[in-house]
Amino acid sequence: MIHYSGQKHMLVAVDCIVFGFDGNDIKLLLIQRAIEPEKMKWSLMGGFLNDEESLEQAADRVLKELTGLNGVYLEQLQTFSDPLRDPVERTISTAYFALIDIHQYEEQLSREYHAEWFMLKKRPSLIFDHEEMVKLAQQKLRYKAALHPILFELLPERFTIPQLQSLYQDIYNTSFDNRNFSRKVLSTGLLIKQSEKDKANSKKGAFYYKLNKKRYKANFQAFLNFIPNPEKLLT
Amino acid sequence: MIHYSGQKHMLVAVDCIVFGFDGNDIKLLLIQRAIEPEKMKWSLMGGFLNDEESLEQAADRVLKELTGLNGVYLEQLQTFSDPLRDPVERTISTAYFALIDIHQYEEQLSREYHAEWFMLKKRPSLIFDHEEMVKLAQQKLRYKAALHPILFELLPERFTIPQLQSLYQDIYNTSFDNRNFSRKVLSTGLLIKQSEKDKANSKKGAFYYKLNKKRYKANFQAFLNFIPNPEKLLT
Repeated sequence: MIHYSGQKHMLVAVDCIVFGFDGNDIKLLLIQRAIEPEKMKWSLMGGFLNDEESLEQAADRVLKELTGLNGVYLEQLQTFSDPLRDPVERTISTAYFALIDIHQYEEQLSREYHAEWFMLKKRPSLIFDHEEMVKLAQQKLRYKAALHPILFELLPERFTIPQLQSLYQDIYNTSFDNRNFSRKVLSTGLLIKQSEKDKANSKKGAFYYKLNKKRYKANFQAFLNFIPNPEKLLT
Repeated sequence: MIHYSGQKHMLVAVDCIVFGFDGNDIKLLLIQRAIEPEKMKWSLMGGFLNDEESLEQAADRVLKELTGLNGVYLEQLQTFSDPLRDPVERTISTAYFALIDIHQYEEQLSREYHAEWFMLKKRPSLIFDHEEMVKLAQQKLRYKAALHPILFELLPERFTIPQLQSLYQDIYNTSFDNRNFSRKVLSTGLLIKQSEKDKANSKKGAFYYKLNKKRYKANFQAFLNFIPNPEKLLT
């Protein structure tokens, strides 16, 4: 078999950023690094790319090996390649990120694995350039939240307006006026009020809502009003 | 120096996708591959990552070495990693893309280099997975065009409505009704009519327009109307 001659071979890794929402806070899943250097420091879920797999397959495998999470949709974020990013050896790393509803994956995560959820805004300091990866993922999350008014991947089937507000406050790292937020969100016509209330967080309680998926889809297309064939955009 | 043991080292490459607009058509810059396999077949501008450079630096270097283009803003698109994507040896490749105004870079490109512009819709078949890279870049271009109504990176300082229409027709691979397109585009209030006409393409001529950059910026923010602090989104 021929080879390209004189070219430098290097290590390739993947790192997985998993955001979850528990109804109150956006959380970030972290593990303690198992090897030197920086052993036991907090880290994204990472590992090396093997010979016979694609980066996507590696990200799935690494996430499963380190956390038990299976079948999570990981989206490629960006490849990080500063020559000094890993102090041991030249390694480039492709970051993947996922948004999950924490409760839905609770069982897969618990017990055997030592992955832990941290509040995004109170996370510990991370190894290497993982902080930069998380910041880029947050920025992507902001774009997503602006384009798709309800981040349904993060929300449970039923949610309250205060929960939705918490989610957006965390994403934009700001606080909204309750009444304004509620008015704006209801004016989108994207929410369907349910008859039950969540009484866990206040005596008065807050009504549950569900996403009007049909209207949500139609709205997203209307929003692309400059484009005559929005379906072409979405393929 | 310590090393990670037992891990597979591999080749890392970059490939550059350069889209240009000449006033009539979107074009794609290609070169003929200089090495085996697939020698002399049409290819994106590609090369291997060196030890002491980041992927971004490699993309800049490769583009300059192969085409003479200097100072072009390249945006990271995605990393391609199918284990069989390069028939010679396992190589992962990070694709970068750029949008340029062809005329502005005419001098840098000509003569010494053998890079050629092809009409995007009549491009030759490309080596390896470069076709897939171009398709993903086209998709990104569609998103950009939907979010930023005027793709000013591609347009000359002054342009006509028929030129703008050609650009959008190429991006969405469709044709628009002239009158409708003109009405829609003018209704955005983003264009400033100039007093001169372009008479190169018709006897009657078409008025030149410039982008109202101030309003363009304000509109983009208005469009993010769900977000209370859009500037946070843009940092």
